[in-house]
Amino acid sequence: MRAEVILSPAEFGLHELAGKTAVVIDVFRFTTTVLTALEAGMDRFFPVTDVEEAWALKGAQPNYLLAGERQALRIPGFDFGNSPLEHYGKEYSGGDLVCTTTNGTAAIHGAKGSREVVLACLRSAQAVAEYVLEQGNDVILLPAGLKGTFSLEDTWCAGLILSMLQPGELGDGAKSALLIYEGIPREELRQSLHGQRLTSLGLHADLEFCLELNCSSGVVVWNQESGWGGLAR
Amino acid sequence: MRAEVILSPAEFGLHELAGKTAVVIDVFRFTTTVLTALEAGMDRFFPVTDVEEAWALKGAQPNYLLAGERQALRIPGFDFGNSPLEHYGKEYSGGDLVCTTTNGTAAIHGAKGSREVVLACLRSAQAVAEYVLEQGNDVILLPAGLKGTFSLEDTWCAGLILSMLQPGELGDGAKSALLIYEGIPREELRQSLHGQRLTSLGLHADLEFCLELNCSSGVVVWNQESGWGGLAR
Repeated sequence: MRAEVILSPAEFGLHELAGKTAVVIDVFRFTTTVLTALEAGMDRFFPVTDVEEAWALKGAQPNYLLAGERQALRIPGFDFGNSPLEHYGKEYSGGDLVCTTTNGTAAIHGAKGSREVVLACLRSAQAVAEYVLEQGNDVILLPAGLKGTFSLEDTWCAGLILSMLQPGELGDGAKSALLIYEGIPREELRQSLHGQRLTSLGLHADLEFCLELNCSSGVVVWNQESGWGGLAR
Repeated sequence: MRAEVILSPAEFGLHELAGKTAVVIDVFRFTTTVLTALEAGMDRFFPVTDVEEAWALKGAQPNYLLAGERQALRIPGFDFGNSPLEHYGKEYSGGDLVCTTTNGTAAIHGAKGSREVVLACLRSAQAVAEYVLEQGNDVILLPAGLKGTFSLEDTWCAGLILSMLQPGELGDGAKSALLIYEGIPREELRQSLHGQRLTSLGLHADLEFCLELNCSSGVVVWNQESGWGGLAR
């Protein structure tokens, strides 16, 4: 297996994805939140880029639930923001979530053209690694980043997943992500630029929840054809 | 001193440069070649983006010398390609070099808006670190990358320079570059994507020359107003 990591979301579109399993990572907080919402019983999610697109979908299907943030805050009129704790411990009887977030949605769309798109976060890192190993394809990891730039926590999570995959061949970005994972203790991710930002907004509980490791067996996948995603397991 | 590294050239334009010393790094081979040409006696260099722009400048000033590459090969009709060994050991009595290369020129232009632009390579890493320390500004390092994407050897060189600067505050990209430097032996940079590419083109001597460490005391700077650069020391 060959593995590569696209270290910056500004490089989405510049890498070869065909035939590869793409792993999209937005630890703070999109991929953590989607995993938590689905595990709480939501059926599926549909990521969109624009707030207008989300409203248009709800206009056509009023039962759709809207979730998303801008500048880390819930979009006015939406059912949910982008916090995993809005969903944690809930027991939904289904539900279709239309989501729009600053970084995560762009990363999912950046994975188009790959063989399969999987969403990962620290909570599901081990489950995702096992799933990717079973698929047996080359893998490309896409840390979602922060406002179009590199993010430490997403790249750290990519390195963590690589450490479990132990691929035979590592691209330069993958080598780097692995060193970042090995060199930075998990607790220090609180001090990443994005971690500091969430802290300054008082979102300590979200931060701690997103930093929990391997406590979920859920694997979220996204279907490029339908635009909907859900739990693969 | 605060230090940051822009890990991908695709992020040029997304970072705050004002007031900072910008260090542009293109180990394979632009910043190595410019340093070597100036140390051999060239007076100054003028980086341009397009081949057409280079020809237009020479049309107006026929004594200008043209240097540059596309796909790592000398541009037809140009006086020089992008190899440091074309200049090494020469004793020029002055000369104005108009340069265009795939990655390095873009990185220099990506540094516009900073307080000062310095060019670094492995050969001049220590000299550049000493110069930057004397300036005393916050520093932002711009690895030039390869075709708009992350490059291991340029980021490694950024990490090396950081290890000598020992800044009080490191951004997330700077922390990462430092770990990449500490985790990868210099010899392994031959196996980077760009190193493999030069090897496949038979440019072994260039590769070895570019990988030599701290063997030059030259510091190349570029003036944003005039567009010309030269040796600061």
